[in-house]
Amino acid sequence: MDDLAVRLGVHELLAAYVDCIDDDRLEEWPDFFTENCRYLITSRSDHASGLRHGVVYAASHGMLVDRVLALRKANIYEPHRYRHVVGPIRMRSVEDEIASVQSNFITVRIMHDGETALFATGRYLDRIAVSSQPFRFIERIVVLDSHKIDTLLVIPL
Amino acid sequence: MDDLAVRLGVHELLAAYVDCIDDDRLEEWPDFFTENCRYLITSRSDHASGLRHGVVYAASHGMLVDRVLALRKANIYEPHRYRHVVGPIRMRSVEDEIASVQSNFITVRIMHDGETALFATGRYLDRIAVSSQPFRFIERIVVLDSHKIDTLLVIPL
Amino acid sequence: MDDLAVRLGVHELLAAYVDCIDDDRLEEWPDFFTENCRYLITSRSDHASGLRHGVVYAASHGMLVDRVLALRKANIYEPHRYRHVVGPIRMRSVEDEIASVQSNFITVRIMHDGETALFATGRYLDRIAVSSQPFRFIERIVVLDSHKIDTLLVIPL
Repeated sequence: MDDLAVRLGVHELLAAYVDCIDDDRLEEWPDFFTENCRYLITSRSDHASGLRHGVVYAASHGMLVDRVLALRKANIYEPHRYRHVVGPIRMRSVEDEIASVQSNFITVRIMHDGETALFATGRYLDRIAVSSQPFRFIERIVVLDSHKIDTLLVIPL
Repeated sequence: MDDLAVRLGVHELLAAYVDCIDDDRLEEWPDFFTENCRYLITSRSDHASGLRHGVVYAASHGMLVDRVLALRKANIYEPHRYRHVVGPIRMRSVEDEIASVQSNFITVRIMHDGETALFATGRYLDRIAVSSQPFRFIERIVVLDSHKIDTLLVIPL
Repeated sequence: MDDLAVRLGVHELLAAYVDCIDDDRLEEWPDFFTENCRYLITSRSDHASGLRHGVVYAASHGMLVDRVLALRKANIYEPHRYRHVVGPIRMRSVEDEIASVQSNFITVRIMHDGETALFATGRYLDRIAVSSQPFRFIERIVVLDSHKIDTLLVIPL
């Protein structure tokens, strides 16, 4: 697979991912990840310190599924949605059919009453399996710019 | 026309469109659409319910021209501008020389006094004629995330 | 170098540039520019009036280096970071191995206490040397939408 095809596939994956979340199709969200995977939401300072845990952490596809089930069942949070806008995607390397990719994002939160506010900003640091279609995340680390992790962090970023 | 050429042309169209609006060259705005077209600003809930109308609606190039004329003549609104940032563009399909495309956007509103605030977020759902250059919108549906449709919704999104 | 290679290189440059700033690696920032260059932060009205100066101005690589040194030494400002999200990149022309490019951006400011707010929006108007890798800015004009130039404008945009 040539460089351009990898770029287009990565681009499609990142766009489809935020679409899935913003469209509240969370049951499909785990399928953006490989069976053995790592999903982590962390803060810049924790990430810089090399800490491997985070506010949200999942180490397998099954843990992602569990998270969505819990989120749907608990339902204790005030209904809200996100809108993500992702900036240009940087391809850092493609080795052994794994692409290392990073991108900036801004997330806006829209509450049930229509109230809209800037919610989170940060970076996606991704390792993506590009050996077969569709591409999937082996690792997605969400590094938040602010350490004020909102208690409303229920929906994945 | 191959897939990549279509992608680049679509990319250019979407970027040129927001540039035109943000640069206040609204008289050029209708020319981003085909003669028979549909432009609609709607809310997520109305769109999900299958409603075909919206807060703003135009069914032809001429109606878009009329809208700009009215906007320029009425001039009753407090002067302001937008700044759009559009995220990665998803090509859903290309069939019969029509590309189905979607993208996320954030719009910031800048008032005459320089006051800047998050204004609207949502999705563009587009059907684009790609049979000849420049590409044009056959249909652009602007699905707003918030049902709080601001009364200042004068300039197209 | 063909059109697509230029596009990809420009895309990489713009993404790497904001990464450098948002990651606080400001010492690397001047190297995104050619030796003889022009970096300018201005307002829309000043830019429209054809004024060639701005709130921030540098006319050489050395002046950019000086600016970073001053910023690091003075250190009188409250610590903060930016997060940039850049929209689709428009290639306006490629002539004599110089690409003319423009893009929209939104910048969010994250204060030391985690407070996050919309900071600046505007356009990048760029002239980029594409004759050799890595591409570099010959000219980067940052046109801010708001004339309320924040007194906290210390870090480059």
